[in-house]
Amino acid sequence: MQKLAVIKEGKAKRFYETDEDGVVWVEYLDQATALNGKRKDHIEGKGSLNNQIDTILFENLMDNGIKTHFIKQVSSNEQLVKTMKMIPLEVVIRNAASGSFQRKFQIDYLKPLNPPVVETFYKSDALDDPFINESQILALEIVTDEELNFITDYALKVNQVLSTRYAQAGLKLVDFKLEFGKTNDGEIVLADEISPDNCRLVDQDTLASFDKDVFRKDTGDLVDVYSEVLRRLVESKEAANV
Amino acid sequence: MQKLAVIKEGKAKRFYETDEDGVVWVEYLDQATALNGKRKDHIEGKGSLNNQIDTILFENLMDNGIKTHFIKQVSSNEQLVKTMKMIPLEVVIRNAASGSFQRKFQIDYLKPLNPPVVETFYKSDALDDPFINESQILALEIVTDEELNFITDYALKVNQVLSTRYAQAGLKLVDFKLEFGKTNDGEIVLADEISPDNCRLVDQDTLASFDKDVFRKDTGDLVDVYSEVLRRLVESKEAANV
Repeated sequence: MQKLAVIKEGKAKRFYETDEDGVVWVEYLDQATALNGKRKDHIEGKGSLNNQIDTILFENLMDNGIKTHFIKQVSSNEQLVKTMKMIPLEVVIRNAASGSFQRKFQIDYLKPLNPPVVETFYKSDALDDPFINESQILALEIVTDEELNFITDYALKVNQVLSTRYAQAGLKLVDFKLEFGKTNDGEIVLADEISPDNCRLVDQDTLASFDKDVFRKDTGDLVDVYSEVLRRLVESKEAANV
Repeated sequence: MQKLAVIKEGKAKRFYETDEDGVVWVEYLDQATALNGKRKDHIEGKGSLNNQIDTILFENLMDNGIKTHFIKQVSSNEQLVKTMKMIPLEVVIRNAASGSFQRKFQIDYLKPLNPPVVETFYKSDALDDPFINESQILALEIVTDEELNFITDYALKVNQVLSTRYAQAGLKLVDFKLEFGKTNDGEIVLADEISPDNCRLVDQDTLASFDKDVFRKDTGDLVDVYSEVLRRLVESKEAANV
């Protein structure tokens, strides 16, 4: 397969056309941003770590019956995914209180949320990605009622699979962000990236952070932390496949 | 019945104990506030207008099978209501785009929203009454799942009754805020005030504002506008009762 022209470049990934219909080539970059892109650092090795972690997690999700955009890894920092028409919603699942939820409602850090909290945000640069409820999503005709129920149920199913997989690696999945897209056939599948860039992970015992918060808050070395997540996922892979 | 000690004073109402168990005496004040209470004006006659409009609307809701806190009007600016344990949620129903919804999503003023949009806000001075979704309400255990469904369904039923009643008076109900409480028997009923203080009304033909926005935006005389709402409700009362 041929990697052709750049389609677009995001905060941490570059997307290329390929010579195969419906296939996009993704390159993970050695880059991290914070404060909505105002802070942008080069971080050697980050692209490869995110690509490898993302690959392990998407393969595990697909093994568990979750349909996704993922096709395969093609190099340490590159992968192939299906062409998607992205749905402009971010779905956030929270298993414990942290971040904006904890601040907004002033509750204890890591207070368990059971059943998990589901939040939706409307992806719109012009509107600054506002928090949006179900009724507003339907009024703005972002998706249909049926599609929204499907997405919410699917996000909770992804949460179960990912929480189990991370637990095998000694990590607690505190919260994470998902995005969905429609394939050329109109099927809604899980898309975007799943990595410590868009989730919060803590060690099950020490509660130490193993995610991008170490970069946002400048409390540790991002490459060390992501390497440890990858190492634990790889080492627990055989156990996970039993 | 005896009006006894003041229990509390709100932005536009004063509440008194009575010598009858489970009954609160409410006095509507000649007062209007804006900007979260930062602006506070004395407006002669407003208390009486709100009390009379609220009475007509609550009586109409009860005639239509809606259970409420309302007992009866006792003077031009006073009424009796049942003692309530208030539920700390504000439910906003929107039949057309205006106010914060219109600003947040940058859509056309008065664009019809069908089905109506339902928003919930968590009443908490410490948290500044944040917008909250269903999942967060359940996580914070503000009400149960069953109670939340009841409140939402009831709010939509109230919307149907109020929209019809205002239409008979030549007014379109654009949006409004409701609050619910539990009676001493634990039954959830509609509480709080229903008046142009907490809804948006426009003339069906001219689209002129007939609510507190004329005070907030200083575009008209509040007493003139509220008097016209009362006059129209009274004049259409016979038609409404047919």
